[in-house]
Amino acid sequence: MSISKYSTFAVIGGDKRQLYTAKSIADDGYCVTIGGFDSVSLNNSLKNEDAATAALNSSIIILPLPAVKNGNILNAPFSDEFIYFDDRLINAVAGKKIFCGMKNKLLSAVPALDKDLVYDYLEREELAVQNAVATAEGALEIAMRQYDGTVNHSRCLVCGYGRIGKVLSQMLKGLGADVTVSARKKSDLAWISLSGYRAIHTDDLKEYSGFDLIFNTIPSMIFDSVVLAHTAVDAIVIDLASLPGGVDFAAARRLGITAFQALSLPGKAAPKTAGEIIKNTIYNMLEEDNR
Amino acid sequence: MSISKYSTFAVIGGDKRQLYTAKSIADDGYCVTIGGFDSVSLNNSLKNEDAATAALNSSIIILPLPAVKNGNILNAPFSDEFIYFDDRLINAVAGKKIFCGMKNKLLSAVPALDKDLVYDYLEREELAVQNAVATAEGALEIAMRQYDGTVNHSRCLVCGYGRIGKVLSQMLKGLGADVTVSARKKSDLAWISLSGYRAIHTDDLKEYSGFDLIFNTIPSMIFDSVVLAHTAVDAIVIDLASLPGGVDFAAARRLGITAFQALSLPGKAAPKTAGEIIKNTIYNMLEEDNR
Amino acid sequence: MSISKYSTFAVIGGDKRQLYTAKSIADDGYCVTIGGFDSVSLNNSLKNEDAATAALNSSIIILPLPAVKNGNILNAPFSDEFIYFDDRLINAVAGKKIFCGMKNKLLSAVPALDKDLVYDYLEREELAVQNAVATAEGALEIAMRQYDGTVNHSRCLVCGYGRIGKVLSQMLKGLGADVTVSARKKSDLAWISLSGYRAIHTDDLKEYSGFDLIFNTIPSMIFDSVVLAHTAVDAIVIDLASLPGGVDFAAARRLGITAFQALSLPGKAAPKTAGEIIKNTIYNMLEEDNR
Amino acid sequence: MSISKYSTFAVIGGDKRQLYTAKSIADDGYCVTIGGFDSVSLNNSLKNEDAATAALNSSIIILPLPAVKNGNILNAPFSDEFIYFDDRLINAVAGKKIFCGMKNKLLSAVPALDKDLVYDYLEREELAVQNAVATAEGALEIAMRQYDGTVNHSRCLVCGYGRIGKVLSQMLKGLGADVTVSARKKSDLAWISLSGYRAIHTDDLKEYSGFDLIFNTIPSMIFDSVVLAHTAVDAIVIDLASLPGGVDFAAARRLGITAFQALSLPGKAAPKTAGEIIKNTIYNMLEEDNR
Repeated sequence: MSISKYSTFAVIGGDKRQLYTAKSIADDGYCVTIGGFDSVSLNNSLKNEDAATAALNSSIIILPLPAVKNGNILNAPFSDEFIYFDDRLINAVAGKKIFCGMKNKLLSAVPALDKDLVYDYLEREELAVQNAVATAEGALEIAMRQYDGTVNHSRCLVCGYGRIGKVLSQMLKGLGADVTVSARKKSDLAWISLSGYRAIHTDDLKEYSGFDLIFNTIPSMIFDSVVLAHTAVDAIVIDLASLPGGVDFAAARRLGITAFQALSLPGKAAPKTAGEIIKNTIYNMLEEDNR
Repeated sequence: MSISKYSTFAVIGGDKRQLYTAKSIADDGYCVTIGGFDSVSLNNSLKNEDAATAALNSSIIILPLPAVKNGNILNAPFSDEFIYFDDRLINAVAGKKIFCGMKNKLLSAVPALDKDLVYDYLEREELAVQNAVATAEGALEIAMRQYDGTVNHSRCLVCGYGRIGKVLSQMLKGLGADVTVSARKKSDLAWISLSGYRAIHTDDLKEYSGFDLIFNTIPSMIFDSVVLAHTAVDAIVIDLASLPGGVDFAAARRLGITAFQALSLPGKAAPKTAGEIIKNTIYNMLEEDNR
Repeated sequence: MSISKYSTFAVIGGDKRQLYTAKSIADDGYCVTIGGFDSVSLNNSLKNEDAATAALNSSIIILPLPAVKNGNILNAPFSDEFIYFDDRLINAVAGKKIFCGMKNKLLSAVPALDKDLVYDYLEREELAVQNAVATAEGALEIAMRQYDGTVNHSRCLVCGYGRIGKVLSQMLKGLGADVTVSARKKSDLAWISLSGYRAIHTDDLKEYSGFDLIFNTIPSMIFDSVVLAHTAVDAIVIDLASLPGGVDFAAARRLGITAFQALSLPGKAAPKTAGEIIKNTIYNMLEEDNR
Repeated sequence: MSISKYSTFAVIGGDKRQLYTAKSIADDGYCVTIGGFDSVSLNNSLKNEDAATAALNSSIIILPLPAVKNGNILNAPFSDEFIYFDDRLINAVAGKKIFCGMKNKLLSAVPALDKDLVYDYLEREELAVQNAVATAEGALEIAMRQYDGTVNHSRCLVCGYGRIGKVLSQMLKGLGADVTVSARKKSDLAWISLSGYRAIHTDDLKEYSGFDLIFNTIPSMIFDSVVLAHTAVDAIVIDLASLPGGVDFAAARRLGITAFQALSLPGKAAPKTAGEIIKNTIYNMLEEDNR
């Protein structure tokens, strides 16, 4: 680890995730100041300051994802007041490394920032991989709550074999479900089969039925009314794909199919883990930068 | 399968589980009449009759667990009125096989029944084994809802290696948790270790700490204030043991430890599966009886 | 651990397993002398003495399984000469705890021994559980060597769900095989099913076919010519049951079915692990005895 | 499936794998002729002809990997005589689809072939994925045969997290080993960790020790004398990387470390599966071609 032990961190804005990021950094022995968390606490000793003071105190700045909303207003849902990214805050972060999600949005809202010092943890592959776990578990939690049977021995369909599809299939199998996974690439179908799942081609979905639980991870319209009518009649459908999603929810309603759109699961279902993932990713970026 | 295809079933009283038992038997092609389900439906074609009519129509009677409450009142939470196990109902079931849970309670409340025709599915080992799955998943659902992190990579302690302990440990491992299991018998400790969990002796619990999630399955006071103070300070504790349970909840409150008593999980978390388990067990009993 | 740190061990007779028992005890920091190992070495510093000298040097005596063969001759295949359990050896072990396998055989061959000081590690449940792992892996090794396909995706039948059946099924599933397990008890069939295997009744074996690999663990004649002809035509059959076994090998030959009798696999396939299991079991017995 | 049911196949040259390819195609109901298999048989009804006759009889030609050796001699180890790719054979295959491994080698040795009709199954990703399973099992078989302990509970290091590393780690974990995997990419390390293995950086290998079994999958010099001396002192080392491999075998000998170079495992350890994989891949190529 090549992070200087003299590093001090400001975690400014964000939700429970960022609070856990702050707590986890503090648990590693670093000095951490938080800003924009008036109305929430983790029952620990993190000191909440106003944003500029927190930034002034620290050598490294951590902002949420996205960092700003509605122009230059900091994304700080737990702050009692709006926090503007004004000159005082700009001066407080000047010359310091800033870590945030969706850095282009921040840079266009606050052009005075030095773009060479703004890092985007959301672009990192290892964050996406780890977030897939939190998303998969969030999906399982929804399935367990909504489905009247057990996941064990249920017939599950996972549509798509990207990061989330891979982790979710493995967890479903770990619970003893009967897992079918759809993909398009021949090599993905080979992986699916050798991992112990039934492999089907995504184009052939409507030829299969009898599922109890269907999870979509593909962000394009897969479950239109025709596919829903064939595949999902007795199933609960959970759409994990980022917007616009892959399920025709209006059609599902018409067909009497229970369907859920599950967005931003890591932050909702597992803010502690989501916060620790952000921390790990920032550590990785600091290390690489110091090499 | 040696169940006569002319068998007809009455499912009288009970909650959503019994309704799923009825639906599952009907899906197998048998004629099923339900009784005592005025205010709930599974959106299927099961015909709800008054209890005696349902019994008269059928050759096999299925009652809930327990079958009666407060003397000879049928346990029928979805009935709009009390259903008494009166002479009319007694006559309607006369000479027919009756399947119920806790048969001694029924026989002492309704002594007119022929005890040789009353069968107790709750005494069957295979029902207990299958219910352990529904209990374990119910416990996982609570853990996922309450814990701010993911079960994946969490540090879990499962106390006791009976049916529920075995299934729960396997599921936690299937989700990628770091699993420790406590038991007392040397051979259980050997099984625990070779299944890939850390094995510890239940008497030594208080020497271990750092758990995120603790599941107790032992129905005697294991987690008293001393053990809680050592083992559970940063953990969520879920007590799955039947009453009186194994956790000192008052001590947990004093220590600021989040603890849950989770009873009757199969019926709550997975009524469909719980109902199918009852059906499977009754089928087994019918088969054995016919041999 | 309540074994006195002043304990000294003599490991006398036996094969590679006992040598690994000795090595593993020495690695724990105890003083160990071996006897009866003239012609084999583990390339370590264990000192080989004649049996009586080894015993005289030590406070605890470890003998092999069985301890004697052909009357009072020590079971010492790696000794250049016969070692008789004569008066000199009897005097050397007098008053000391003796651990062996099949203690009754030893006591009847050497009646001068104090039977209250002779302990049988082979009777211990935890040894049997751990040995099941070594047996299962030995069976896998045979299967891999003999079968022209991969275990992954092969269709496997495990007959019997005792210790070896349980471990072997889990390992086959861990390699990605398609696993069917036969048993007789309803509760075993429930366990088999919820563990993710196909459950079939042992009496119905001959109704199933299409297996690539068949493992028998039941020590009675299960695979007679009729069952073999139906179940095993394209399969390799591996009989793991202790003698007399459960496969009609003559019938297998007539039918052109490849069949193997695999006995004493722990010592053959994994002497290191088998030796460590013996050590762990002896430690457990010493601890319990000292309480 | 869009393969014409009138397709007829010639499988010419190759080892046991190709014989299984032929058998598996015949089992699917197609007409198959084999050529160049004088001295081996699968005890089935495949008809062996001379190469040109087999080709003349068939509409699709399947050649081994590589197809030729030493110029234009067919790679046919089970033929009693050399089979030259002469004009007679060239004429027999003219206008037909030819499937082989290493097509460039074939085309330069036999320039008269129409290169648009020569297909290379060895370049296909799904073949590589499926072969990884056969390679991983072959490695396990070597480990089981060579190691005196059980894989269960052994400490294993898998170096590299490509196709073989992924499958092998999963199988080792499935057998209950304690698995460490090394990789270089941060996202691979994230995958390794969330799959339940210990993740270490390949550059840091020499800081780790205590392994029982080490599997290398990286085809460059990873295990030089320094890394071997630190990591592998008590381990068995199995090099699965294609030539030149990743282990300094001379250094291993000097250090007294047992090391094996395991090449071409699919064909050796699981020719049946390897042959079926070739068939599946050719089917995929035929289907895509026909669309």
